[in-house]
Amino acid sequence: MSSNPLNILFIMTDQMRADCMSGVGHPVVKTPHLDALASEGVLFKQAFVQAAVCGPSRMCFYTGRYPHATRSPWNEVPLPGDEKTMGHYLSEAGYRAALCGKTHYTPDPLTDPEAQPEQGIHRTALAGLESWEFNDGRGDGWLQYLREKGYAEEICNNPFAVNIPEGADKDHTAYPIHIRKEDSDTAFMTDRAIAFMAEAGDMPWFLHLSYFKPHLPIVAPYPYNEMYDPADSPLPNRIPEELENPHPFHIPYRIERKSVPFDEEHIWRQRRATYYGLITEIDDHLGRLFHHMKHNGLWENTLILFTSDHGEYVGDHWMFEKELFYDEAYNVPFIIRDPRVEANPTRGLVNDDFIESVDVVPTFLEACGLGIPAAIQGRSIGPILRAERPSDWRNEVYADWDFRFYWTPKKLGIPPDKCRGWMVRDTHFKYWHFNGMPDVLFDLNKDPQELYNVAEDPAYAEVIQTYRLKLMDWRMANEDVSRVSWTYNRRPGFGTNPFSNQ
Amino acid sequence: MSSNPLNILFIMTDQMRADCMSGVGHPVVKTPHLDALASEGVLFKQAFVQAAVCGPSRMCFYTGRYPHATRSPWNEVPLPGDEKTMGHYLSEAGYRAALCGKTHYTPDPLTDPEAQPEQGIHRTALAGLESWEFNDGRGDGWLQYLREKGYAEEICNNPFAVNIPEGADKDHTAYPIHIRKEDSDTAFMTDRAIAFMAEAGDMPWFLHLSYFKPHLPIVAPYPYNEMYDPADSPLPNRIPEELENPHPFHIPYRIERKSVPFDEEHIWRQRRATYYGLITEIDDHLGRLFHHMKHNGLWENTLILFTSDHGEYVGDHWMFEKELFYDEAYNVPFIIRDPRVEANPTRGLVNDDFIESVDVVPTFLEACGLGIPAAIQGRSIGPILRAERPSDWRNEVYADWDFRFYWTPKKLGIPPDKCRGWMVRDTHFKYWHFNGMPDVLFDLNKDPQELYNVAEDPAYAEVIQTYRLKLMDWRMANEDVSRVSWTYNRRPGFGTNPFSNQ
Repeated sequence: MSSNPLNILFIMTDQMRADCMSGVGHPVVKTPHLDALASEGVLFKQAFVQAAVCGPSRMCFYTGRYPHATRSPWNEVPLPGDEKTMGHYLSEAGYRAALCGKTHYTPDPLTDPEAQPEQGIHRTALAGLESWEFNDGRGDGWLQYLREKGYAEEICNNPFAVNIPEGADKDHTAYPIHIRKEDSDTAFMTDRAIAFMAEAGDMPWFLHLSYFKPHLPIVAPYPYNEMYDPADSPLPNRIPEELENPHPFHIPYRIERKSVPFDEEHIWRQRRATYYGLITEIDDHLGRLFHHMKHNGLWENTLILFTSDHGEYVGDHWMFEKELFYDEAYNVPFIIRDPRVEANPTRGLVNDDFIESVDVVPTFLEACGLGIPAAIQGRSIGPILRAERPSDWRNEVYADWDFRFYWTPKKLGIPPDKCRGWMVRDTHFKYWHFNGMPDVLFDLNKDPQELYNVAEDPAYAEVIQTYRLKLMDWRMANEDVSRVSWTYNRRPGFGTNPFSNQ
Repeated sequence: MSSNPLNILFIMTDQMRADCMSGVGHPVVKTPHLDALASEGVLFKQAFVQAAVCGPSRMCFYTGRYPHATRSPWNEVPLPGDEKTMGHYLSEAGYRAALCGKTHYTPDPLTDPEAQPEQGIHRTALAGLESWEFNDGRGDGWLQYLREKGYAEEICNNPFAVNIPEGADKDHTAYPIHIRKEDSDTAFMTDRAIAFMAEAGDMPWFLHLSYFKPHLPIVAPYPYNEMYDPADSPLPNRIPEELENPHPFHIPYRIERKSVPFDEEHIWRQRRATYYGLITEIDDHLGRLFHHMKHNGLWENTLILFTSDHGEYVGDHWMFEKELFYDEAYNVPFIIRDPRVEANPTRGLVNDDFIESVDVVPTFLEACGLGIPAAIQGRSIGPILRAERPSDWRNEVYADWDFRFYWTPKKLGIPPDKCRGWMVRDTHFKYWHFNGMPDVLFDLNKDPQELYNVAEDPAYAEVIQTYRLKLMDWRMANEDVSRVSWTYNRRPGFGTNPFSNQ
């Protein structure tokens, strides 16, 4: 075990599905460097996010708390100023905690008078993180770099425009962007991560390397745009019955979110192929980053966690993007390599325990030898890495979805306060509950692809009741206790601290 | 209708039951001035608090939000600094908003660096209210007044000590305190309210007159200690079966909260009698206050709301104080007199609509012509006062209870995060749900006194499922949207404001 302090590298992709790694058996996409990382760590196949759009999912990753606790259940809903993030925890513990990439963080004017989200709502680094290189898609640093490399101004102003030849007859995502692969956002952010590691020196550091890809627009630099043959794209996970008798929830999210083009075969085939290319692009650059770390004394004293903020349907369930509670949106890639000797017993294992994104903060805090505040709602994965899996590890995962935004309440015909859905999933069932719309239940034993909603089948009436109770008890057990824990931790003589017995 | 601006007088007692007014048919206690107030306004018989200890109940009254939203689910759990109260709303609207009495407010060190709750946690006035006269039980102003009146220092240091003659054989609450009735805390706070009204002049004002009584210690100045004959005290609402097969929840709250003395007949008879005396003491002083207002031009331009933060068992269900979800703890007196002509159609009516304490803030805001922020979870009672009852007025009330404090988790043998209970009550059933203990269900049609828990009776299995769903949907519909509403209200171009359609 290295005597150096442990660094933490927290790599996040944006909109990458759990199944899109060669190491988990994807028939097309190649991710040799992620597979190699997994061979030295643990690959968690059942890792789920708490929300499937960028902002709320990331706020859960960053705070270790569920969407109802962060009170940021959708993009651009500010994270309250008293919500502590991994950036706060680790910088307070003496880490240099920095951001290289995207956060989708929105500052909160109700608690921070300096916050002016109207002006550049995406442009503020995550509270508590040093903004080493900020990039929520079109970061200033990257655009400046492109200008210095001599790219034309119209390209710098629209870096994801594609180079479509005259008379082209394929989907536009078949064509490359104007930017060379060595200058892409993925390449640039990787360079900047390497530069950070060089500058950080011996001071322990935490780096959130947060790529914008393979988030839409699904367009790639050459050769990633043509690396995979559309003819090889696997068939979408969908059946005509899903369109014939859709849940009301499908209607706005399928139609309004521009999913309809994915009905056409040449579209989904090409977009899948380009999506895979973007993932291999990331993998290539991670290979370069890992090579640098190995040759600069950073491999054996850096804990690496690789994941994504959510998935992407690319045509599954007749959908594009990531709304609704299907696994394609909520199940994410999740690899941890802990370099320390205690993690040796689990190296190379594939794990089926249920992981939630709220587990990331406590995992980091425990890895750094820090206490885990009671306000954090996840659990450290550390014991699993040390082959000391707690017998009471969770048997299900949960999600919480606020969909009152834009036109949705009007389209659904329900008031905003009913635009909320909760989901529970274990190995047998997945249950979605809404208070303004019908339930959804999938019997995953018989229907692992979530194609047949059996919520109305009387044979499942008891199951519905059981899973409703799970949802209610989960919600009840996870009321926000941030002030309660303060009361116990700080005020002498208030009573026995019940958390001391946890 | 007066051309003066409308003032608001918000009177709250502490621990006064809904049934302890002569106007609702109590067989013993006399409350002629409250009855007269009701005859000029509306008496709501089905008003319920959201929590039944002082702090969390008051935070709901003051913010218009449920305990899970205020994040202050128990005494001394700080109210977050970004929670706006009626004090904030009304002072921002130009009202002089003042406190005369108790709040049980605890400032929040997580958002307010100036807050030092360790030093005098009860001594800070409610955020947003001017501290005209603060008194969370033993207020400095009152104690100073007692000293000036010549009371001995040992009496001022212990103003609720009783004067027990040698050889006394009755319960100690039969004897008077040393302080004369004209100098009691109830008398003094009333004097101070009158002084506030005189000083406030023509500027519109909001006064929260918040009495500490009839909260324990149940002791009264002469003659209120002997005003009612213990022989007349009504029998407690309890049966031996409640002790024979108690719910686990009863055990700590019955034994540890010092309820056992109430098992003895001479104890509950005397304590009830003294409790009634304390209520009549308040009523006498309210008579004095109302007389002053009528003779000083304040009666026709002041909206008066009278209520209590919760009730008191005084022996019902073999209990003392107010834990558990019984009506004796959650149902409170609730009278509104709106002097304006629009309220004439309902004067003197007794109303059976379900009122929740979160309705108070929106009622005040609407009465003052102010908008109601989306973060507020209650509804204005104003339309009911104008005989314009909305057809979708609620059909049930809810409560939310965190009982992880002190020794409770250990006594119950459940972890702190399971120490939470939710309650729903309509006209037919009351259902209590815990996630670490058995359910409780009362069939109020057959058992209005809540004596027979039928949760285990298979005949009620469907009812349990229905009321669980009510709880889940209530909770889901009331997730905190304070930042969501900000997002819509403040940021241009974010999308259609769904609240504009509410």
